[in-house]
Amino acid sequence: MLQRDDKGRVLFGPIEYLFQALIVLSLISFAVETLPDLSPAWREALRMFEGVTVLIFSLEYVLRLMLCRPRLTYAFSFYGIVDLIAILPFYLTTGLDLRSLRAFRMLRLFRLLKLVRYSAAMQRYHRAFLIAREELIFFGLISMILLYLSAVGIYYFEHEAQPEAFASVFHCLWWAIATLSAVGYGDVIPVTAGGKVFTFFILIIGLGIVAVPSGLFASALSKARESDRD
Amino acid sequence: MLQRDDKGRVLFGPIEYLFQALIVLSLISFAVETLPDLSPAWREALRMFEGVTVLIFSLEYVLRLMLCRPRLTYAFSFYGIVDLIAILPFYLTTGLDLRSLRAFRMLRLFRLLKLVRYSAAMQRYHRAFLIAREELIFFGLISMILLYLSAVGIYYFEHEAQPEAFASVFHCLWWAIATLSAVGYGDVIPVTAGGKVFTFFILIIGLGIVAVPSGLFASALSKARESDRD
Amino acid sequence: MLQRDDKGRVLFGPIEYLFQALIVLSLISFAVETLPDLSPAWREALRMFEGVTVLIFSLEYVLRLMLCRPRLTYAFSFYGIVDLIAILPFYLTTGLDLRSLRAFRMLRLFRLLKLVRYSAAMQRYHRAFLIAREELIFFGLISMILLYLSAVGIYYFEHEAQPEAFASVFHCLWWAIATLSAVGYGDVIPVTAGGKVFTFFILIIGLGIVAVPSGLFASALSKARESDRD
Amino acid sequence: MLQRDDKGRVLFGPIEYLFQALIVLSLISFAVETLPDLSPAWREALRMFEGVTVLIFSLEYVLRLMLCRPRLTYAFSFYGIVDLIAILPFYLTTGLDLRSLRAFRMLRLFRLLKLVRYSAAMQRYHRAFLIAREELIFFGLISMILLYLSAVGIYYFEHEAQPEAFASVFHCLWWAIATLSAVGYGDVIPVTAGGKVFTFFILIIGLGIVAVPSGLFASALSKARESDRD
Repeated sequence: MLQRDDKGRVLFGPIEYLFQALIVLSLISFAVETLPDLSPAWREALRMFEGVTVLIFSLEYVLRLMLCRPRLTYAFSFYGIVDLIAILPFYLTTGLDLRSLRAFRMLRLFRLLKLVRYSAAMQRYHRAFLIAREELIFFGLISMILLYLSAVGIYYFEHEAQPEAFASVFHCLWWAIATLSAVGYGDVIPVTAGGKVFTFFILIIGLGIVAVPSGLFASALSKARESDRD
Repeated sequence: MLQRDDKGRVLFGPIEYLFQALIVLSLISFAVETLPDLSPAWREALRMFEGVTVLIFSLEYVLRLMLCRPRLTYAFSFYGIVDLIAILPFYLTTGLDLRSLRAFRMLRLFRLLKLVRYSAAMQRYHRAFLIAREELIFFGLISMILLYLSAVGIYYFEHEAQPEAFASVFHCLWWAIATLSAVGYGDVIPVTAGGKVFTFFILIIGLGIVAVPSGLFASALSKARESDRD
Repeated sequence: MLQRDDKGRVLFGPIEYLFQALIVLSLISFAVETLPDLSPAWREALRMFEGVTVLIFSLEYVLRLMLCRPRLTYAFSFYGIVDLIAILPFYLTTGLDLRSLRAFRMLRLFRLLKLVRYSAAMQRYHRAFLIAREELIFFGLISMILLYLSAVGIYYFEHEAQPEAFASVFHCLWWAIATLSAVGYGDVIPVTAGGKVFTFFILIIGLGIVAVPSGLFASALSKARESDRD
Repeated sequence: MLQRDDKGRVLFGPIEYLFQALIVLSLISFAVETLPDLSPAWREALRMFEGVTVLIFSLEYVLRLMLCRPRLTYAFSFYGIVDLIAILPFYLTTGLDLRSLRAFRMLRLFRLLKLVRYSAAMQRYHRAFLIAREELIFFGLISMILLYLSAVGIYYFEHEAQPEAFASVFHCLWWAIATLSAVGYGDVIPVTAGGKVFTFFILIIGLGIVAVPSGLFASALSKARESDRD
């Protein structure tokens, strides 16, 4: 009677969509909780919603664990671990009330990963990544080298003129990533003529390089889709 | 005698271009109206132009409604509704003079949609969207998750150092969208070392992901064009 | 003895490269001339270099005019007009010394167009443009509509909170282009919650749309290159 | 017994990975050295690590030089020169202690190039570059012309209003590169209506042009990968 996926894990049918909705709601409630001027009533309501959510997810986890054949497949599969991590922080923080451990609640965000569960498209992405893997790694490496060289270069040009903003190569890396990603926050800007000319050439060379990987991946994905249809 | 498109809607031939020009002019006049130091004479002239425009569009609407066979095809078609919406706000605001309802005049912008009417290219775009739909939705989802995780991450790193700018996860979402879209306004910038390192990795992972959908769509469009020629 | 291109215009062989170098030099000298604290000696030298350049280009123009068969082909061809425009402003400004006419010297920049002369690659670009023309025009139109709608939208959200920066729809267009092009200068930034949410959605929809045309053109260019090899 | 690559240069097997790790470590130590408030103990430790690194690399260089058959192949190959440059600055700066020559230590960064050694993927990149060379050069040229014209254009519009920021065409080039690369630092922004309208059109035309080369290169790389598989 129970539907099972190719790994023997149980599928709850339409109820799965309910779980997805609950995950999104719990993520929104998590964001609302951080609002600075939240009334105590709201705070209480959110705390209760959190409790109910964890209860439902715990039940779901136990059910999945019991219904899966063979049982260990689920417990040690990627999603089994994610499901556990999504509920574990609640028991840890309420049981011991260690406020400093609250940061671990961020792990509850792994629930999000459930959202992409069972998606067939994900496998195509995986295949596209395999097709373009070598190129992506190589280009990633080139980008890293470029970032490092940009940071060292700007350090030599700007360190004396702006000893605060360009204090070390690490500070310069912040400038390099903000510049080569074209974000350009504007908090760290070269002021010397040398630094500006250097930035000029770095941008001309760098932007092209940084933009290639996504083009590569898009074309690999087209390939994967075509071979899917054949 | 009258030309009709495939849905039986009447085409006015060369006069259609005149309508298009009128739409663009009315949009410009709408923008000019918002200029803060406009002389009363100009304001009056624009008001009159608005009146004339609405009159012409009303006549056009009535004509289209009467000449279409079967008549209901136009009235309930997408463009029929857009045409109605483009003239309705004028009658509502002048008839009752409710200043607060003026915001609805924004709907007059739907006239713009007329500009893309009858375009054959639009159907190709629709087909390209269908080809790449799954990938686009999946990547849209991944981008949303990435945005959310970035916002929560930067919240933990920057909230204490900048309680104003990074007040809640929602405030951090504003930072996340400005950063991952590479806009980088520069009004909200991480200052802690942790926040900067986090931004560093988010940018390296994120920019590639965010740029893929447009590459996907471009390649799907090439596909659609090729199959068009076969 | 004289080489001629397919339109009967004379080619000077290796000397053409000399002309190209001279064009680049004259462009640099034009830029140097605008430096605020330039010594009178330098200024004089640049003025003399400008004179020599114009003399050489004038001689070149007359030679080309005389050697071309039939002569009118050159005089009324695109490059013939560009060559004339590149030297004309000098005679106009020195003959009459009308300082206000100096702005016309910007036309001397058309000399740059000479740089792309005779290039075979240019024809491939032209063909790629023809292949993707419909899509490019359509997407250009969509981008324009998006820009306009973004400007009007942000006007309604931000005008009251920031009546200076978002004074009119035209001011908002400046914000819209800086945002949708991902430049994000940071001089005009939404501050209201509504404006930020609006920007959020505009960026998600808009960046994808704005980035598609260059992907389209790149793939059309690949097509043109392939058909070149066949 | 000794492995040799196709040019007769010796390969040390698994030890090569150790060299790679050492290169990355020496690059990090180089960055750490620039930190402003580093304790003398740390500074001493880094100096010693630098000494050990150079010693190892020197030994490696001598070994490679001796084991290579024919010997000159290595000494005059690209990587032989890079390897020499990676260790030479150390001997120069410590031997003579010329502090001003320290800038040459930047050359030590060439060690990074070792990281991409022996990679097969690199050859594919080279081939992709050859496929798209003409287009890349042509587009590079067009981008340069666009940058120059943008700088001159904005100079005429903004020079009078902002004589400091837009002091000369060279200052305007800084604005042009920051704008057309979509970085948008926000340190130099047009304020006149004319300058803003000019920026508007430059962005619409320019961003498309600037983004094409990376799309071209990505598609050429896909081509090179496909022909690899055939």
